Amino acid sequence: MLRGIPSLISPELLKILMEMGHGDEIVLADGNFPAASHAQRLVRADGHGIPELLRAIAKLMPLDPYVDRPAALMQVVPGDKTETPIWGVYGDILREEAGLDVPFEHVERFAFYERARAAHAIVATGEGALYANVILKKGVLPAN
Amino acid sequence: MLRGIPSLISPELLKILMEMGHGDEIVLADGNFPAASHAQRLVRADGHGIPELLRAIAKLMPLDPYVDRPAALMQVVPGDKTETPIWGVYGDILREEAGLDVPFEHVERFAFYERARAAHAIVATGEGALYANVILKKGVLPAN
Amino acid sequence: MLRGIPSLISPELLKILMEMGHGDEIVLADGNFPAASHAQRLVRADGHGIPELLRAIAKLMPLDPYVDRPAALMQVVPGDKTETPIWGVYGDILREEAGLDVPFEHVERFAFYERARAAHAIVATGEGALYANVILKKGVLPAN
Amino acid sequence: MLRGIPSLISPELLKILMEMGHGDEIVLADGNFPAASHAQRLVRADGHGIPELLRAIAKLMPLDPYVDRPAALMQVVPGDKTETPIWGVYGDILREEAGLDVPFEHVERFAFYERARAAHAIVATGEGALYANVILKKGVLPAN
Amino acid sequence: MLRGIPSLISPELLKILMEMGHGDEIVLADGNFPAASHAQRLVRADGHGIPELLRAIAKLMPLDPYVDRPAALMQVVPGDKTETPIWGVYGDILREEAGLDVPFEHVERFAFYERARAAHAIVATGEGALYANVILKKGVLPAN
Amino acid sequence: MLRGIPSLISPELLKILMEMGHGDEIVLADGNFPAASHAQRLVRADGHGIPELLRAIAKLMPLDPYVDRPAALMQVVPGDKTETPIWGVYGDILREEAGLDVPFEHVERFAFYERARAAHAIVATGEGALYANVILKKGVLPAN
Amino acid sequence: MLRGIPSLISPELLKILMEMGHGDEIVLADGNFPAASHAQRLVRADGHGIPELLRAIAKLMPLDPYVDRPAALMQVVPGDKTETPIWGVYGDILREEAGLDVPFEHVERFAFYERARAAHAIVATGEGALYANVILKKGVLPAN
Amino acid sequence: MLRGIPSLISPELLKILMEMGHGDEIVLADGNFPAASHAQRLVRADGHGIPELLRAIAKLMPLDPYVDRPAALMQVVPGDKTETPIWGVYGDILREEAGLDVPFEHVERFAFYERARAAHAIVATGEGALYANVILKKGVLPAN
Amino acid sequence: MLRGIPSLISPELLKILMEMGHGDEIVLADGNFPAASHAQRLVRADGHGIPELLRAIAKLMPLDPYVDRPAALMQVVPGDKTETPIWGVYGDILREEAGLDVPFEHVERFAFYERARAAHAIVATGEGALYANVILKKGVLPAN
Amino acid sequence: MLRGIPSLISPELLKILMEMGHGDEIVLADGNFPAASHAQRLVRADGHGIPELLRAIAKLMPLDPYVDRPAALMQVVPGDKTETPIWGVYGDILREEAGLDVPFEHVERFAFYERARAAHAIVATGEGALYANVILKKGVLPAN
Repeated sequence: MLRGIPSLISPELLKILMEMGHGDEIVLADGNFPAASHAQRLVRADGHGIPELLRAIAKLMPLDPYVDRPAALMQVVPGDKTETPIWGVYGDILREEAGLDVPFEHVERFAFYERARAAHAIVATGEGALYANVILKKGVLPAN
Repeated sequence: MLRGIPSLISPELLKILMEMGHGDEIVLADGNFPAASHAQRLVRADGHGIPELLRAIAKLMPLDPYVDRPAALMQVVPGDKTETPIWGVYGDILREEAGLDVPFEHVERFAFYERARAAHAIVATGEGALYANVILKKGVLPAN
Repeated sequence: MLRGIPSLISPELLKILMEMGHGDEIVLADGNFPAASHAQRLVRADGHGIPELLRAIAKLMPLDPYVDRPAALMQVVPGDKTETPIWGVYGDILREEAGLDVPFEHVERFAFYERARAAHAIVATGEGALYANVILKKGVLPAN
Repeated sequence: MLRGIPSLISPELLKILMEMGHGDEIVLADGNFPAASHAQRLVRADGHGIPELLRAIAKLMPLDPYVDRPAALMQVVPGDKTETPIWGVYGDILREEAGLDVPFEHVERFAFYERARAAHAIVATGEGALYANVILKKGVLPAN
Repeated sequence: MLRGIPSLISPELLKILMEMGHGDEIVLADGNFPAASHAQRLVRADGHGIPELLRAIAKLMPLDPYVDRPAALMQVVPGDKTETPIWGVYGDILREEAGLDVPFEHVERFAFYERARAAHAIVATGEGALYANVILKKGVLPAN
Repeated sequence: MLRGIPSLISPELLKILMEMGHGDEIVLADGNFPAASHAQRLVRADGHGIPELLRAIAKLMPLDPYVDRPAALMQVVPGDKTETPIWGVYGDILREEAGLDVPFEHVERFAFYERARAAHAIVATGEGALYANVILKKGVLPAN
Repeated sequence: MLRGIPSLISPELLKILMEMGHGDEIVLADGNFPAASHAQRLVRADGHGIPELLRAIAKLMPLDPYVDRPAALMQVVPGDKTETPIWGVYGDILREEAGLDVPFEHVERFAFYERARAAHAIVATGEGALYANVILKKGVLPAN
Repeated sequence: MLRGIPSLISPELLKILMEMGHGDEIVLADGNFPAASHAQRLVRADGHGIPELLRAIAKLMPLDPYVDRPAALMQVVPGDKTETPIWGVYGDILREEAGLDVPFEHVERFAFYERARAAHAIVATGEGALYANVILKKGVLPAN
Repeated sequence: MLRGIPSLISPELLKILMEMGHGDEIVLADGNFPAASHAQRLVRADGHGIPELLRAIAKLMPLDPYVDRPAALMQVVPGDKTETPIWGVYGDILREEAGLDVPFEHVERFAFYERARAAHAIVATGEGALYANVILKKGVLPAN
Repeated sequence: MLRGIPSLISPELLKILMEMGHGDEIVLADGNFPAASHAQRLVRADGHGIPELLRAIAKLMPLDPYVDRPAALMQVVPGDKTETPIWGVYGDILREEAGLDVPFEHVERFAFYERARAAHAIVATGEGALYANVILKKGVLPAN
């Protein structure tokens, strides 16, 4: 444990967030996402929900201001009746932490898989909600 | 050994089943299948038949409800007279464990090999029956 | 995710629990424990408290009936005023899950470190309570 | 699969048996043995009983004629009432396959662990009987 | 050394032969073949001729009955006067061990290289005869 | 780069600082220290002086309150006239960041080497001052 | 430390510079560049600005005389108002160290990423200026 | 050191020369060649000129009699005035050691790079002459 | 294959022989020797007898002139009636190739094992004779 | 190749020299030294004499001023008539490059081996002179 680092961020996850640069993407994958088969770098966060991880990451990592929508969600498959109230939770978090009003791009399921496969890393969470996966694109920071 | 985990499921196999996500496939390969040359991840289950493995896995892992037929068999090569009574055994197991009536897609031999090559893992069993290979596609679970 | 496996148990942790045998020990280490420097096998469980992990593990893994006290706690260093109410929580969990009334041995701090160094694995949790480390010794199961 | 090799002998186990030489020891460990923590080389044989493995190995591998008792069992811990009928099964197998009448040395539990730690390999079986572990010391063969 | 395994079959070669399945190919490469640069899995058998290896392998491993010619030779390059009496030796061996009368396909030199590159393994022998390379395609066995 | 993490802390160094626990030690080694030959884990920080690293680390990582002097310096070898004004700089930094007045233990040169060899990690800096090595012992944090 | 090697050049960086040959490229990446995801070989130089690294490297490594412009910069994205005064600093350094007046090619952002992906190595610096990345193409030296 | 092996041939280089087969190519690269970035297998021979290596290799390894020109040189880039007297030295060596009068194919610079990338190995020498790189294609030997 | 290197010397064995220096020992182990469990570096030479390997090695590698007896044999265990005619064969080979009349030290069985464990390498042959193991101690060569 | 680095210093050797610190030792081993079996880190410099390497290293690396004799030679074994004129060459080089008049400690053969085993690295040269091994102990440098 270090001062100012939330304990649900693992050392490996923090290292990967630091190594990411402008335009690199990270996937917060729900418990049903095929993370191990799609990840270039896999970080386990078993047992954690995505909202608390999203908030912790959004505090540490800026989102990309060079694109219109620096976050992406997986569209509900046509015909599937699943509701996605967790998207509202994500919206609130990104509004509070990143000042973004309409941050989300919506991506068809298999296109989402392809984008996850190209992402810098995937975080395998225990999130139980369906369609709860979210991709974040990193922005830039001035030197510190 | 742990409570509730059948002893024929090896630690490595259980880990791989857990790491699989929605849509990932696993091949239960008979003793003559070219498993080592086709597997992205190879798990040995030498000396075990497929029916007992299939039942143990079906108890632990849900099958994909987003496709019509979440399991696949290798078609008998035209001209080959081999009978495949083991398919009936598989059907009974999936009916009992997964509540599926017509779970099987039938795939031509070389197409089956290509699909096995793309699968998340292959389990190399000692199953002696011919044409006994079976592919399972994982489904989704609510959080637990 | 698999049926019957709590989502806070990571695939790697489950694999290690399965591979452990009679007399092997596992340390559930609090957030301040020097886990990386002492572990023969290190499993990360960042952000999780020990009580929920202890309960999940105690459901899966039997404790050793061949020793008087199959669990161990780190003694408070003489002069340190820290209270350890979490020990009562652990006691309740082991009473409920393992039927043990007096399960704990109390081990001096540096002796505890040496025993942790010899343990089969250490789980690095985010538990914030002090003196919250606990060692579990695995028992035996009949075949299943 | 190859002609003449029983399908419960995995490729890795056969390779290790071949690489062993005069005086090297292999442990057939029951399902409760701490195999992963004691093995220099670990072979998994989950779900298999020891008798069928013992017979298959005894057919392939000679036992050491330079010692009085080329096999060893773990003594029942004093006070433990467990019966060990499986020892008789082992005795029958070694009589039939190796022509030995009194093959077994009996080793105290913790001395057995130390000897297992020095052995060339440990096979982790799913054998459910208690005190079912057995150590085999390899002998010599004329050239073939 | 094990009973019934010829001593010129190395532990690694036997393991690879066991792991091969229906349709997998293995190349027995003469001393001049570019084995290291073409092999997916390379096994050294320095100093051995191919005929004794071919006979030992043919005793253990069935050839593929689903193709007309389960073995392949490299055609002599046009204009090269080299004689290939060793092909007759190979023919005799496969007739005796596998009951095949016309087992060989003849493959142009660079096509042979490509097929070797896709093979499961290459055995680098010390065979001194030219054009002595041979590819074997594995068949199926009933359970044992 | 992440918010709040100074850019001279490398991702690997931050990961190691996070993984350290109570009582683990880290060496900030000057440019002449034999870091590669003594380190269990080596982190390069070429071209950086120790004062800026010490300040950055002291902001993130608590020092051990269970020992009298949680930092250590290498004593000047008897007969060596070297002055060590940098020790005063270190004292100021630890007073400001950790509130410690007399934080330093002074350790004989070869005893210092042995302690460095047992430390969790060594950071190889480009610090040009002589006798500028410093060891820090990590403390505890409440959960966050 | 060695005589004549600046301490901000790490051992690994010097080794890579030595191993590079005529036409190989190295990227000096600013703190926001996606270095870890694009690098074939990644060298960390956290906390260092690019100008001092550029000067140190230009003293050691010749630039390619076979191309018109042996260095490359990333073009400012259209619409972005960022100024790039650091380019002037780079120009001065290359004029002084390499005698080049117009060394820079200007490359569109995504083309720059592709070229970085093909480069021999990327140095991840802590440079805080935006658009501060620079690619260097190595030249030739007579024997020494 | 072994009898009959020149001391400038390293153990690794000799091993690679032995493992090469008919048609495999090896590049002797001068000190400016981008060896590390192009090599499938890289052997260092720092500080050695190519002529002595060429002679030592030509004594051990036959050249390919199935192609017209079993060696290749890099063409001088159009407009470059560099002289290549070392080519004459190479010609003398191959005449004396391999009995070849016109052994060299001349390959355009970037085509040479591609061929080097496909070669079995590259030897990185310290040769100071420019355009001194040479590719050798291995031939066949009768059994010994 | 290379000129002058016998084809039963594998590339790996030749590399190890080259890397050995004055006083280093190599064991030529018969088919029953526990080579894999005792070797620091293991080279397989399955299917070969020791006499032909001994002759090939003795031609390449000098024996140590600084000790009285640069070769060692394993003594027959007291009570064992085995004859060792192969020792005479070894004596003839070393007389012819190394000019030694009484080259052999005789070492008790378990002392021989310890010495093998400390040797630089063990060659696992297929030699069928019993007590056929031999240790060679390397000597010195003038530069070549 | 880089400016100012002699081409007989390999990239790996330079990296190791840089990583060494005060008191670390490096062995320049002649062609007969058992380098591979004694080295913690082995660098090959086949075909090179020690004098040119010694001079190149002495230019780059300071010797230890804290000990009386920062270099060491292997004593001639009693009874051995070998002359060691190369020691005078070494003395001249260290006088010219390091300003040392009596730099050499003389160490008995087996004590020399033990010291080499503890050294940071061994450079395996092709030096043909006997008793030509030399150990160098690194000193300190002010920051650059």
